[in-house]
Amino acid sequence: MEKVDWKPGTMIYPLPAVMVSLGHKPEDYNIITISWTGTICSDPPMCYISVRPGRHSYQILKNTGEFVINLTTKELAYATDWCGVKSGRQFNKFDEMHLTPGKASVVKVPTIEEAPISIECKVTQIIPLGTHDMFMAEVVNVKADKRYLDEKTGAFNLSKSEPIAYSHGQYFALGRKIGKFGFSVEKNKKKPILKVSGTGIYRKRKSK
Amino acid sequence: MEKVDWKPGTMIYPLPAVMVSLGHKPEDYNIITISWTGTICSDPPMCYISVRPGRHSYQILKNTGEFVINLTTKELAYATDWCGVKSGRQFNKFDEMHLTPGKASVVKVPTIEEAPISIECKVTQIIPLGTHDMFMAEVVNVKADKRYLDEKTGAFNLSKSEPIAYSHGQYFALGRKIGKFGFSVEKNKKKPILKVSGTGIYRKRKSK
Repeated sequence: MEKVDWKPGTMIYPLPAVMVSLGHKPEDYNIITISWTGTICSDPPMCYISVRPGRHSYQILKNTGEFVINLTTKELAYATDWCGVKSGRQFNKFDEMHLTPGKASVVKVPTIEEAPISIECKVTQIIPLGTHDMFMAEVVNVKADKRYLDEKTGAFNLSKSEPIAYSHGQYFALGRKIGKFGFSVEKNKKKPILKVSGTGIYRKRKSK
Repeated sequence: MEKVDWKPGTMIYPLPAVMVSLGHKPEDYNIITISWTGTICSDPPMCYISVRPGRHSYQILKNTGEFVINLTTKELAYATDWCGVKSGRQFNKFDEMHLTPGKASVVKVPTIEEAPISIECKVTQIIPLGTHDMFMAEVVNVKADKRYLDEKTGAFNLSKSEPIAYSHGQYFALGRKIGKFGFSVEKNKKKPILKVSGTGIYRKRKSK
């Protein structure tokens, strides 16, 4: 395997592309699409978003100390991209994209009603890093859309919402399921679908 | 749209599932699979991994201050899962998964040769948060596999490596491309493939 060195860069992919809603007053309501986001701690549940200080949303985030992370889907792909390109200085993004500000349960920031999951967050720390400041936050509530709840089992089927991922400049739908966490050590279970690629799959070697 | 409140939790998905390689000495070489990872700053390029202090890798990371983030693929899905379930205390994960420790260019930690992209990182700060400590790091080099480089254009085709994503307990292949960043504002271009879902797509309303 021949390798080539690149200059240092941001190459962790695929990433989520979430729509972050923010603002306490309707005239400040805005949506910013962010891929520099993720989970940083399981308990307490914590996450982050990184935002350029020049962005319209930056000062609102700083003043209110709250935001909502809304997961995105194929249906929301156009709005996801558009809200990442356009500025809240010029547009009311909820109006332009026909999105509905919903009522969050803990924070005063609106959710995006059309999202399958809305994660309510309170900022705990802001760390300036360079082009971006990192907003670390604690998750204070999660709102889930009942459309994706299995009425019998109560399980939430996120994949039914058709989530999208952002990878190296492009949005993708999720494809085939490969297996669930821990599939490599499961016993007496059906083999996970691994032959999707048609290429050799690394398997644990047989014990000697 | 009817919503249900959940207790606060970690619901940002889909996420990457990267194999982090670490250790300065061959006897310390280890691989830990992590989804609590992401980019936190574009310039300087910075990222993070969050790790439980009880993990075998934790002390090695702390002592060496270096790690490599290796992107994963369908071909590496089995190893990705296995390295997230098993501990380096019991297993030499490179050996068990038939993975090859490669030479990084800047850090002393091995890369995983089989990965399409290896991101060399130096820890800048460790922030204890609860169950996890967050290792913030600066990217100091990126190694890319020439297999995915277009010889004519020099463009790197990451999707050709068949990346995988982790979403709510399951690994997925990436599916159809929806569009590239900025597709919603492109003019005089072919419409992006958006009708994959067969459902209505939010489009910007026509100007009045």
